[in-house]
Amino acid sequence: MRFTSEQRLDDGVLERGFTLGEIPGILWTPGSASAPAPLILLGHPGGLHKMYPRLAARARISAAEGYAAATIELPWSGDRPRSAAAEEARADLRRALEAGEPVDDEIVDRLVLPLVDKAVPEWRAALDALLSLPGIGGPVGYAGGVIAIGIRLAVVEPRISAALLFAGSFVPRTLFEEARQVTIPLQVLLQWDDEGNDRQMALDLFDAFGTEEKTLHANMGGHTGVPQFEGEDGNRFFARHLK
Amino acid sequence: MRFTSEQRLDDGVLERGFTLGEIPGILWTPGSASAPAPLILLGHPGGLHKMYPRLAARARISAAEGYAAATIELPWSGDRPRSAAAEEARADLRRALEAGEPVDDEIVDRLVLPLVDKAVPEWRAALDALLSLPGIGGPVGYAGGVIAIGIRLAVVEPRISAALLFAGSFVPRTLFEEARQVTIPLQVLLQWDDEGNDRQMALDLFDAFGTEEKTLHANMGGHTGVPQFEGEDGNRFFARHLK
Repeated sequence: MRFTSEQRLDDGVLERGFTLGEIPGILWTPGSASAPAPLILLGHPGGLHKMYPRLAARARISAAEGYAAATIELPWSGDRPRSAAAEEARADLRRALEAGEPVDDEIVDRLVLPLVDKAVPEWRAALDALLSLPGIGGPVGYAGGVIAIGIRLAVVEPRISAALLFAGSFVPRTLFEEARQVTIPLQVLLQWDDEGNDRQMALDLFDAFGTEEKTLHANMGGHTGVPQFEGEDGNRFFARHLK
Repeated sequence: MRFTSEQRLDDGVLERGFTLGEIPGILWTPGSASAPAPLILLGHPGGLHKMYPRLAARARISAAEGYAAATIELPWSGDRPRSAAAEEARADLRRALEAGEPVDDEIVDRLVLPLVDKAVPEWRAALDALLSLPGIGGPVGYAGGVIAIGIRLAVVEPRISAALLFAGSFVPRTLFEEARQVTIPLQVLLQWDDEGNDRQMALDLFDAFGTEEKTLHANMGGHTGVPQFEGEDGNRFFARHLK
């Protein structure tokens, strides 16, 4: 892990860009911390530049409660090399959505499964690097979108103690099976009128999660309309499980 | 309104029993308050004695944040005179549930509609009396069960500014129509595995509410298993809308 930039934000939070091999990422650490800060991994749908305002806002809400937060670019997104197969799957998805057709499981599998298979080991490598930094200690939470990545991480990465998942993307059937194996506490955010998300599928997925400590927060509005108070609710969720 | 008992609880909350005509009730007020306290009406399924521990616990959580809280006995419950029609409807419901049969809309109508018709004017009369007391001022919230009563109150009582509703009881079809007229902010609690509650009906009802400011909190477990943190979440919901 190599730091590539560093700036102090107006609330004292230290923001550092880094690369991990070819993967760019950002780390935010609280302005003042006496003990090692618990870490929250911020998931997102890819495209660090585009996502930066929302990620930085979430990181600052976390930092205000003493958490470090970090994110990495997803495979085939932002400045990283593209994948022809992923582009093709995305085009097929767009065609189905624009035609108002139901999206084939086969398209979802082609779109999401290779992404999960590649992204999850990268998140784990980032976790190795982040936890070796001074001032950052466990426990670790995962917060954000690409719920399929969150599911797989929750199953395979024992250092993740709690996850705040955003039900706003397609989930392959096989990930429903993995969801049954999740035993860490979960809070799931659902935007009730999310244009790109199947509400019933999200409810079925919430039902499928194996953990007994799961809470669903559904709010009105579309994909990007999550109310501001859910940021603080997320902090309280992590406070119950990471401290 | 006539006070019939008074005790100071260990956290300084003043608990007073009262009667309003033939209706018994309880009022809790914060130990110290500089300004008139906003008021939260605590709904429940009937039977003040049996419900007392849960109601008092909720009232104390509210009082800690500066809210007064009050409840009244429901018609045909607790020490109030019984209704033969209500008893019959309840027996029919029990028979259907024990036989594992779907519950007829007709039974739900007979059970719930007369209760709503009688209880809502009583709640409004209680509100008149409570708001005339020194130290209690608007705004007013409603929190609790018998969601059908909460719906009707939210529609007809303009002094109620926000409602925290517990989706844990049967709702007549006609109340779904009234739900579309609700425009105040709502937070709806759903116990995912509530044995006496139809999950899909609860989700349909959440969908039906006319307000754009509605949030659903679903948690695992049965009817009485609402996690403790939802008490504080409820306070924060009211803090956003009653202060």
